[in-house]
Amino acid sequence: MNGCNNAIAFARENRERFLNEYRAFLRIESISTLAEHRQDVARTAQWVADQLHLAGVAHVAIMPTAGHPVVYGETKGPAGAPTMLVYGHYDVQPVDPVDEWVSPPFEPEVRGDYIYARGASDMKGQIFASIKAVEALSKQGPFPFTLKYLIEGEEEIGSPNLGAFIDEHHDLLQCDFVCNCDAGIHAPDVPAITYALRGLAYFELEVRGAEKDLHSGLFGGSIHNPAQALCELIAGMHDADGHVTLPGFYDKVRALDAEERAAIARLPYSDEEWKAMTGAPALWGEKGFNTLERIGARPTLEVNGMLSGFTGEGSKTVLPAKAMAKISTRLVADQEPGDVHDQLCAYLKRHCPPTVTWEVRELTHGKGAIMDRKTPAMKAASNALETVFGKEPIFKREGGSVPIVAMLQDKLGVDSVMLGFALPSDGIHGPNEKQYLPNFLRGIETYIHFMSGLGA
Amino acid sequence: MNGCNNAIAFARENRERFLNEYRAFLRIESISTLAEHRQDVARTAQWVADQLHLAGVAHVAIMPTAGHPVVYGETKGPAGAPTMLVYGHYDVQPVDPVDEWVSPPFEPEVRGDYIYARGASDMKGQIFASIKAVEALSKQGPFPFTLKYLIEGEEEIGSPNLGAFIDEHHDLLQCDFVCNCDAGIHAPDVPAITYALRGLAYFELEVRGAEKDLHSGLFGGSIHNPAQALCELIAGMHDADGHVTLPGFYDKVRALDAEERAAIARLPYSDEEWKAMTGAPALWGEKGFNTLERIGARPTLEVNGMLSGFTGEGSKTVLPAKAMAKISTRLVADQEPGDVHDQLCAYLKRHCPPTVTWEVRELTHGKGAIMDRKTPAMKAASNALETVFGKEPIFKREGGSVPIVAMLQDKLGVDSVMLGFALPSDGIHGPNEKQYLPNFLRGIETYIHFMSGLGA
Repeated sequence: MNGCNNAIAFARENRERFLNEYRAFLRIESISTLAEHRQDVARTAQWVADQLHLAGVAHVAIMPTAGHPVVYGETKGPAGAPTMLVYGHYDVQPVDPVDEWVSPPFEPEVRGDYIYARGASDMKGQIFASIKAVEALSKQGPFPFTLKYLIEGEEEIGSPNLGAFIDEHHDLLQCDFVCNCDAGIHAPDVPAITYALRGLAYFELEVRGAEKDLHSGLFGGSIHNPAQALCELIAGMHDADGHVTLPGFYDKVRALDAEERAAIARLPYSDEEWKAMTGAPALWGEKGFNTLERIGARPTLEVNGMLSGFTGEGSKTVLPAKAMAKISTRLVADQEPGDVHDQLCAYLKRHCPPTVTWEVRELTHGKGAIMDRKTPAMKAASNALETVFGKEPIFKREGGSVPIVAMLQDKLGVDSVMLGFALPSDGIHGPNEKQYLPNFLRGIETYIHFMSGLGA
Repeated sequence: MNGCNNAIAFARENRERFLNEYRAFLRIESISTLAEHRQDVARTAQWVADQLHLAGVAHVAIMPTAGHPVVYGETKGPAGAPTMLVYGHYDVQPVDPVDEWVSPPFEPEVRGDYIYARGASDMKGQIFASIKAVEALSKQGPFPFTLKYLIEGEEEIGSPNLGAFIDEHHDLLQCDFVCNCDAGIHAPDVPAITYALRGLAYFELEVRGAEKDLHSGLFGGSIHNPAQALCELIAGMHDADGHVTLPGFYDKVRALDAEERAAIARLPYSDEEWKAMTGAPALWGEKGFNTLERIGARPTLEVNGMLSGFTGEGSKTVLPAKAMAKISTRLVADQEPGDVHDQLCAYLKRHCPPTVTWEVRELTHGKGAIMDRKTPAMKAASNALETVFGKEPIFKREGGSVPIVAMLQDKLGVDSVMLGFALPSDGIHGPNEKQYLPNFLRGIETYIHFMSGLGA
């Protein structure tokens, strides 16, 4: 425990430097989905590798994939000691709508207790806190466990090359469990550990009418407007009670048992706070479930984007040739993402009229996961959170998707401890993403306590 | 008639020069709706004024409005002679989707019998043909009628300042009838005169949910997705039989009588050709009416554009804060465009759920019109078409809107002769807009015969 206390002291002494390095990390525009940022993504990988090296990780390598590279690190512990693989990603989401950012997304700005930047919360802040914990601990002597790092650059585009990477480096990545830092807690002072994640299946649906855009006066009303047809199809994807209508969508959904519903009911939550946090005029959702059940335990379908015809300023009297929607589903444990593609196509075959044509492209998918809450690593994480936050963490189901968790269960046979410090109100993926700075610092200390507790 | 024959000869001798000037006209990017083209629009007005001057029009002026200027021209005829006001516009529609143009929209290219460019058909080709007819005629001696030109630069944005201009210059614009060149014929060898036009009411509808874009995994399924809500609202704007459901939408629609239905049935038309022309997989429309009735005699509602959330390449798991649609209605005689705004709002009040908010902005509107087919000017136009095309023109109802026609009826008390040579297949407002060149040349000759016939 002396090592731990000294590491905590080191982290506190180096707080300003850590924050400056965090800012530098946030300045690199590592948007993985945009081809024009390929060089920025590569620079970010190099930056992260340098940080691992600075933190005392013995072997660090930037390893190529068919897409953006993986940053790998390793420090061997004593023979027979457990092995922990820390997972994170260094890429970020695009920044549009960019004109809604108060400060530029890649010029981190501290306002009050928050730092604002794309990636501040998702997840540069989290993975960087873990690296700083490793730096603080490695100053105190050899690690009592084997530490591995796997930090990818394609999480925000669905990790298209990670599966092949894990297969190719199967032996290198062997471990007893994963610490996944791409996670959050429930509220600023409410520590939490996520034990269930939703899967994702994300599609682009295009509906076509005429061969090209036509004049809406000369042709409108004589052929089916594809924007209207798309609206009709999307409108039909939920029934009046908010259930998703894709055929078979709920077939494999695991029912919530009474014990879990009771546990969810005990979580700190109020409809009024949720309304205030989102700014929506009212809540909405699947009938028969409350908000936390809808988010954590039920599959959902969302329109993520929609585009057709003329969308500039003013008026253009065009009858569009096509209309496009990005549609994604969040899936719970036991649902197969691959099935959703078939369900969506079955829905379209049944409901799309012969007056337009449709095409579906699957953009990304990943399975949901549910973890054992009683492992030694879970216990160590729980103890660390309780020590730093002064209260026992809650165990929660997460609405978001971390497909890597299911992938690591499948490919390496290991569970993940979800340990990160993002907040639901951080605005990740949207404008003005932020990280609550006190928890960035508590995060470093939590990782120090957690790792110190692993060798015990 | 000697003057007429000499003018025809002059037009044939100067064909190459006329085509080169037409090309120069098409090269100027007079997109009235885009602020960045303001200078181009002004340059176009100057170019048109120069052409009127070159054509022998005695008094030419560029006259300011609160928006883009009007080009005015006048040549006085003998005392007691009739006065014709020629109407046209020199502005054009935007060019998106620009990547679907085979040749750049402002680099006119002749392929086969067609010239391709934005504005080739709508309506630089038409107004320019009339100006060249005036040039040919003015070489032959004084006009037997008073000629006035009113060429505006804001037709494609709904002529927001034309009403005030006409009011301000009410005396200057006095005339016995209008020749509106913003018109077309039915097929390459089927001359036609439009005697009815549809009105237009064009709106932007915005639906809002959360205050800002949110993560679709963390919030999706707990609040109403505004893109989904917009789809639900748009889907409900037509019933299963293709009727528009806005309350009161059909209240003032004038029923088609048996005689008009019979006249429409005699027009050259086939469903197969219409399908081939549009490229749509099937026809669609209001039950109880055929295509030409739907286009010419029934009001319709179209989605002209739609935008929400992430529409770039790849996937972004965002729950959008808002969704927008451009929605326009085409109206038939007796429907009041101002009523449609109220009808749309009434529909939204009735059907928009409390889980989202909505806002409607009216972007533009204009009334429909129906004209007397038996005036001397109509007769002169009919004769001219028969002389040049070798067959009697058909009289037709037009699906498009030329709100200026109703405006001139209201403000100056005069009817319009719709005389232009665009074709339904010209692709106006869309990519690869074209003009059938043989009819551009026949158009010049038709205008020559028409004007020669007026003094008689």
